[in-house]
Amino acid sequence: MPIDAVLSQIDDQLPTAIDRLMELLRIPSISTDPAYADQCQAAADWLVNDLQSIGIQAEKRLTPGHPMVVGHIDGPGPHLLFYGHYDVQPVDPLDLWHSDPFAPELQETDGGQVIRGRGSSDDKGQLMTFVEACRAYKEVNGALPCKITFFFEGEEESGSPSLIPFLEENAAELSADIALVCDTSMVAPGVPSIASQLRGMLKDEFTIHGPRIDLHSGHYGGPALNPLKELSHIIASFHDDQGRVAVDGFYEGVHEVSDELLRQWESCGFDEDAYLSLPGFTRPHGEAGYSTLVQQWARPTLEINGMWGGYQGVGSKTVIPAEAHCKLTCRLVGDMDPDVLRERVRKHVEDRLSPDARIEWDQDLEGSPASVMNTDRPEFELARQALSDEWNREAVFSGMGGSIPVTRFFTDILGLDSMLIGFAQEDDAIHSPNEKYNVESFHKGIRSWARVLEKLAG
Amino acid sequence: MPIDAVLSQIDDQLPTAIDRLMELLRIPSISTDPAYADQCQAAADWLVNDLQSIGIQAEKRLTPGHPMVVGHIDGPGPHLLFYGHYDVQPVDPLDLWHSDPFAPELQETDGGQVIRGRGSSDDKGQLMTFVEACRAYKEVNGALPCKITFFFEGEEESGSPSLIPFLEENAAELSADIALVCDTSMVAPGVPSIASQLRGMLKDEFTIHGPRIDLHSGHYGGPALNPLKELSHIIASFHDDQGRVAVDGFYEGVHEVSDELLRQWESCGFDEDAYLSLPGFTRPHGEAGYSTLVQQWARPTLEINGMWGGYQGVGSKTVIPAEAHCKLTCRLVGDMDPDVLRERVRKHVEDRLSPDARIEWDQDLEGSPASVMNTDRPEFELARQALSDEWNREAVFSGMGGSIPVTRFFTDILGLDSMLIGFAQEDDAIHSPNEKYNVESFHKGIRSWARVLEKLAG
Repeated sequence: MPIDAVLSQIDDQLPTAIDRLMELLRIPSISTDPAYADQCQAAADWLVNDLQSIGIQAEKRLTPGHPMVVGHIDGPGPHLLFYGHYDVQPVDPLDLWHSDPFAPELQETDGGQVIRGRGSSDDKGQLMTFVEACRAYKEVNGALPCKITFFFEGEEESGSPSLIPFLEENAAELSADIALVCDTSMVAPGVPSIASQLRGMLKDEFTIHGPRIDLHSGHYGGPALNPLKELSHIIASFHDDQGRVAVDGFYEGVHEVSDELLRQWESCGFDEDAYLSLPGFTRPHGEAGYSTLVQQWARPTLEINGMWGGYQGVGSKTVIPAEAHCKLTCRLVGDMDPDVLRERVRKHVEDRLSPDARIEWDQDLEGSPASVMNTDRPEFELARQALSDEWNREAVFSGMGGSIPVTRFFTDILGLDSMLIGFAQEDDAIHSPNEKYNVESFHKGIRSWARVLEKLAG
Repeated sequence: MPIDAVLSQIDDQLPTAIDRLMELLRIPSISTDPAYADQCQAAADWLVNDLQSIGIQAEKRLTPGHPMVVGHIDGPGPHLLFYGHYDVQPVDPLDLWHSDPFAPELQETDGGQVIRGRGSSDDKGQLMTFVEACRAYKEVNGALPCKITFFFEGEEESGSPSLIPFLEENAAELSADIALVCDTSMVAPGVPSIASQLRGMLKDEFTIHGPRIDLHSGHYGGPALNPLKELSHIIASFHDDQGRVAVDGFYEGVHEVSDELLRQWESCGFDEDAYLSLPGFTRPHGEAGYSTLVQQWARPTLEINGMWGGYQGVGSKTVIPAEAHCKLTCRLVGDMDPDVLRERVRKHVEDRLSPDARIEWDQDLEGSPASVMNTDRPEFELARQALSDEWNREAVFSGMGGSIPVTRFFTDILGLDSMLIGFAQEDDAIHSPNEKYNVESFHKGIRSWARVLEKLAG
């Protein structure tokens, strides 16, 4: 079979594929921090050059933010739009990294060989599994089995501000039969997974202003309003003692998981003990009455991602600070509406402010609803077979706790269904210090995509 | 009268006295941050040279921390120990300063001319009022009217770790009839004040550890324990809805203010409206049922001075952080025991930790009980007369919300009573950005000390 030659080529060329990924990982393309804007340009340039080296017509497309990369190559089969993102999360706290986040290394671990570095898993490593599959396929067969449009974004970790206008302006060029996305993880090691439902996301950020200036805790301690205490009261009020979000109307649009889906999930290979013990938990800490998996895949959350105020330096400072800050995100499920929810969360906060406290909201934050994939399409069954062949284990349709808003925009703007296949592991530490990607994920990920392309070509 | 010539000399020499203070203010002697250790040495050296220029036998004395300055000069009257501190608070947040904190300036304001810069009020400016009074007295009279020991510390803003051992080792050299301290403020503009009771202080700091590593709020949001939420719950539990501290046993040793003292305080010139409106408050925010002044001078507090965890950078990061941090201080009154209280506060926190959360306490933090001055000593009445003469207004015995632990150590180790006279104003912004000292405070402060020395000499 022709696919065997492609798989052999992938095996033979793995070291050079890893070298290419290392090059991309060395570019610190942090999209949330404007200081790294040039590096985002550099990562886009690198991808354009790499696609061109395969014979793909590729270009960098400028936006008001970080650039997009778009590439085209023809083929006899259906037209696929492949999406990935080249931007990465910030690296702080830097002192918890055991090596330079942007000096990637191959390391031996108890779980096998890994590629260590920021973006190795999310999403540069995953993105390159598809690119390397195309390279090998073309090297062996001289052409690709499907028509493919490549679409790489550089703002995924910073809310994709340029994505909607870019999709709208380039809808014709980006149209295809189905979108493929490689930015998800496997339910468990060795269990190939197609993510069939994702949570949405709402981001918000606020500052509580108390006294006009920082005050001395001796001269003003007692009569003073302390914004750190104000903020703590508000954060503490977000959840009841059963772990439910206490914001009025928060659960509107949330649906209970069907018994049939629950049964599928129970047999999908999710290792609850491994999932909980990785961060050192002895139990799930979410809503009472829901399993760990349902808390992660099918229940909404309101999470504090950052809070700060007052003195953080060495030693002590007897200050009552003028300001307290909070960054939060909600994960959305079902039909929760991010715009309605934003107003409800803000009302909850504002209703609890003390007299003399003042609140200021960030104005530039986005929301996206949850997504459910159209698993009835024949491509899902073909991909399931391809993945099962590669991993010698039945592939599963899984839920996903994370948010990939692009799939919603593909539906709304391009009229495209998406299929999400990814090879990350729960312990990849994405968004954390010491992020890694298993060499097995990278290697078998490339092989998986080659098999999927072959199947989809028919 | 001989004092008139001294007062004239003080008036004539005010510009050069301001120049000398400016020199001292240019030395960034921040004691809490080890990076400024050399600058603390430099400030001590400057003071030794300045005392020597007056004819005082002065030396820098090394300690395991920042050095002490000790000086001696003889005189016919009683033996006074004068205490001040040359170290200053950190300057962050630096971006809220309108000028360089260590490039002091004379500025015209609606409230008159001020000296702007870190330490201008707390405590370099105040310390120098006494030194300049001695300089002028000696220049005019060739000698000082009292025997004086000068004792300057460089660790007041960082918990005075070297103070107790230094006092114990040098008790004989530092013995005197009474201690004078210039580190307090006036009850209201133009109202000369002798502080007769001060609150004590307890410092503590802790870290809550949640997950072993930072987690992705998509992959783990729901089942994960979030230490920011844990910390908020704990801080929110510190007070009840009447503003009382809810830590079990917190108020043990707290006494109600006597009716007689309350009457004195009510007529002491404290301007509640000005005090509250300076930071923008429309009401006091402390314990219900107590006046603003009593909340500040005679009630204990538990205040959060800093809290932080998670992402604080530009944009958003979907993280559930591994750690949350909190710095707190309690102000103590009456017979509250800092060691007992520390255990109670810690128990309160530990009793409220969720399973899977772990707490770590800072081990190097100190506490000091409240102080009540011995106002029956004749020196208090003499000083009250001297201050009333200078300010053309009856001087008052005031309470004080801040903590000056050194007075307690003078009592316990040297057997010395202290008298606290200071000229700071509530709006000096000590410990805050844009700290200032009124030129009037500096000028009339010097004149006040000259009159006090004259009176105490008898």
